[in-house]
Amino acid sequence: MQTAVDSASFYHGIGVNARPVSKFTPVLRVLGGLTLVFAGAMATPLLFHFNPMSPSGAAFVFSVAATGFAGLVMLTLSPSRGEFSLTRRQGFLITTLAWTVLPAFGAMPLVEEGLSVADAYFEAVSAMTTTGATVMSGLDETPHAILVWRSMMQWVGGVGIIVVGIIMMPFLRVGGMQLFQTESSDTSEKIVTKAFDLVAWILGIYITLTFAATVLYTAFGMSWFDALNHAMTSVSTGGFSTHDASFGYFQQPALHWTGSFFMLCGALPFIAFIRLAKGNIGAFVGDIQIRAFLGFLAAASFTIAATLVLREGMPVMEAARYSTFNVISIVTTTGYATTDYQQWGAFAFGAFFILTFVGGCSGSTSGGVKIYRFQILRSLVMVHLSRMISPSRINVVMYHDRRVDADVAFAIMAFLAIMLFSLVISTSLLAWLGVDLLTALTASATSITNVGPGLGDVVGPAGNFSTLPDAAKWVLAFMMIVGRLEYFTVFVLLVPAFWRG
Amino acid sequence: MQTAVDSASFYHGIGVNARPVSKFTPVLRVLGGLTLVFAGAMATPLLFHFNPMSPSGAAFVFSVAATGFAGLVMLTLSPSRGEFSLTRRQGFLITTLAWTVLPAFGAMPLVEEGLSVADAYFEAVSAMTTTGATVMSGLDETPHAILVWRSMMQWVGGVGIIVVGIIMMPFLRVGGMQLFQTESSDTSEKIVTKAFDLVAWILGIYITLTFAATVLYTAFGMSWFDALNHAMTSVSTGGFSTHDASFGYFQQPALHWTGSFFMLCGALPFIAFIRLAKGNIGAFVGDIQIRAFLGFLAAASFTIAATLVLREGMPVMEAARYSTFNVISIVTTTGYATTDYQQWGAFAFGAFFILTFVGGCSGSTSGGVKIYRFQILRSLVMVHLSRMISPSRINVVMYHDRRVDADVAFAIMAFLAIMLFSLVISTSLLAWLGVDLLTALTASATSITNVGPGLGDVVGPAGNFSTLPDAAKWVLAFMMIVGRLEYFTVFVLLVPAFWRG
Repeated sequence: MQTAVDSASFYHGIGVNARPVSKFTPVLRVLGGLTLVFAGAMATPLLFHFNPMSPSGAAFVFSVAATGFAGLVMLTLSPSRGEFSLTRRQGFLITTLAWTVLPAFGAMPLVEEGLSVADAYFEAVSAMTTTGATVMSGLDETPHAILVWRSMMQWVGGVGIIVVGIIMMPFLRVGGMQLFQTESSDTSEKIVTKAFDLVAWILGIYITLTFAATVLYTAFGMSWFDALNHAMTSVSTGGFSTHDASFGYFQQPALHWTGSFFMLCGALPFIAFIRLAKGNIGAFVGDIQIRAFLGFLAAASFTIAATLVLREGMPVMEAARYSTFNVISIVTTTGYATTDYQQWGAFAFGAFFILTFVGGCSGSTSGGVKIYRFQILRSLVMVHLSRMISPSRINVVMYHDRRVDADVAFAIMAFLAIMLFSLVISTSLLAWLGVDLLTALTASATSITNVGPGLGDVVGPAGNFSTLPDAAKWVLAFMMIVGRLEYFTVFVLLVPAFWRG
Repeated sequence: MQTAVDSASFYHGIGVNARPVSKFTPVLRVLGGLTLVFAGAMATPLLFHFNPMSPSGAAFVFSVAATGFAGLVMLTLSPSRGEFSLTRRQGFLITTLAWTVLPAFGAMPLVEEGLSVADAYFEAVSAMTTTGATVMSGLDETPHAILVWRSMMQWVGGVGIIVVGIIMMPFLRVGGMQLFQTESSDTSEKIVTKAFDLVAWILGIYITLTFAATVLYTAFGMSWFDALNHAMTSVSTGGFSTHDASFGYFQQPALHWTGSFFMLCGALPFIAFIRLAKGNIGAFVGDIQIRAFLGFLAAASFTIAATLVLREGMPVMEAARYSTFNVISIVTTTGYATTDYQQWGAFAFGAFFILTFVGGCSGSTSGGVKIYRFQILRSLVMVHLSRMISPSRINVVMYHDRRVDADVAFAIMAFLAIMLFSLVISTSLLAWLGVDLLTALTASATSITNVGPGLGDVVGPAGNFSTLPDAAKWVLAFMMIVGRLEYFTVFVLLVPAFWRG
């Protein structure tokens, strides 16, 4: 719990300790550590055929050095003071800063590659939020180091959001995520100590999945380089590709099915993977969120495949493959395309817009509303219907075997309200900037849900965000961050009371 | 309260009374009464220059006779048994039946005028729900009796929904309307006795407003016939016109401002009018819903007027008038157009889509989400933000000076969820029928919110719903009814428990 003295130290650096410690110190310390790790990640692409002495190579080296230096400065300014702990407010601040500051560093190599600052930041945010909307074209001719860096940012952003989703969000009580509190995310406001074990498990599983995807992609016909990149952007449900044609560059059916499988993995709750790895064989079968998710994907894929067969005359197996891949791609918020599904008729066109909002499971790399929220909303609607019939009956909103607190239900309602509000604001701003309604609406939707492609010629699966006005790119980048961090993590910083203590 | 015996009598007609009474008897009795009144209303258009001996006149007379006969049959089959009372379930059934069965009678004169059954039912539902979407064109040449009948259906539907909104909905606890419970809508499950007084007040105010609108419209240049029709469709926020050009047929600025004023009146809470009529001068000023509503309208009108002046170079007064009229027309869910606002650029285009959802105040003739729900949602979001900052703090969702029960908050959340669900289902069905996404989405939105026009060439303010497939018209008619009755009144009938007792 926070005391008045702690609260004062938030500003004045006068803590209960003998030596003055600002409340910003732990924030800076974590951010510095993350920046340093990020610089390390940024060095990796140099392994890919770049000559560090060439002008562009030197620019990349400079980006790494600058990022690393910034990280070191932050660490120096925030010396360790024994046991490390975080308050809730510091948690909000760190999470938001990580997804706004790191992309700024990540954008540096892209600026040096010739992108404008707006474009580069948009691209880096799109990567770190695993959205996958791109302003870059000519990917097939882009230097490998740049391509790997884009994929790596998605990969890092993906594992980052799993950690945040499993450890941070329940602790911060964002958007109903307190439903998934584990022992390591209890309310003691000291989350770091117990969390390292969990992070290690998440990372182990994430790396295993990425490795498996790389091997299978190679086995089924991708080059080693393409396989690695697509493995990173599949498991992170990011959706960046090394080709302008996206995943559609590869026409081998086995690759499409493999891609579908790993996108799906990225959208499943990683807690279930951890339970499985720890020997709980029934971890997946017993999870109502996973069951509902798979059921929904099967129904949606079947419906769209059926329209492709019946209306467009596509052969059954091909329709099943294209439908499954693209439905999974959108619903898991990956955003690869194997084909321009806008050509599949009015129904598919509308359906893919609606699918944009669905999202995957809690504690995964996917964005959107997410399955468990729909399940709780359904329970809530049913309870409301019951109470209308028999007002005196006591009905409890349930999720699986546990009672849903009013607190969680309100949080989910607030999530939905603020999501719609964000969609409205973003759409209005883009329309104000002269963007047509279909583009404004679907670009906003695909950004806040971290999917990637919108609809229409401009931002559709066959389009590119580069022609949007710069101001629209800043708006969308902000919306990606806001959506990725489930709105409240960011918006809470705008409340004066947050800073007052 | 409902007893086991009462519950059994719902099916078997074995009540606690000595003589067997089915639970459907009061339902049939009320519906019969409504149908008889409706037949009376249907006779009124015969005053308008129709020759009852001409073929079309005879057809109109036949419609009136058939409706009246049906009403009498219903009354005969449901004899009175002393004191009249209604259970909650009977309330749901009556309300839904009123908005599904009466339009079927109301459609008869339109079928005889040459419309298909689908078109006529769509038009009648659009009227009775005060939506105002039309499949009819050539209005300027349409017989006056038909035009008056369309306007009258809106007028009747408008006052009907005010009565339902003030008396029935709070009693049924639909969508959070229990927030507005008055003495006459308490939980005693006997609402009829005390309600007559309230109905008389509502009707008195409604007629006064309509009369005032007729006089002013005539004074500012409309023919007496046009004035009467537009008065009926303004105050009911219905939006049917006697001209294909809608309200745009009239170019006198005074008429536009008068129209804006009366549409606004129709969207205000009639309880405030009643309080005013009873001498409470501060009834409007003290109402936070009205204040927020007027503030929102002013902000939206100003923003759009500013874009018209700055971007389209429209003169200031003209921009103010057009913007105010069309914003009020959409937000009050009237749906008149004075001009095709789709020509006002991307921002206005997007803005009018968003404005479709807003709606007016509780207990008015308007549809949509409605202002008080936004106010409670905002309070809920703020409480959630506060609790994220200080989880131990107790925060209560407030509306004006009263505490919002969890029950009401859940109801509003369920309302929002089911509204989005309805929008998704309707859009998907229309897309399935081959309707393009923009048309499918905006036609669905404008139907469930009872606004009238959508966007695009087909269903936009300059378009017409007639070219949609018949199946789409049935879907949209259903959505209008569902939206008008705030979803749960209809959907509760689909729950098996409703019929089990």
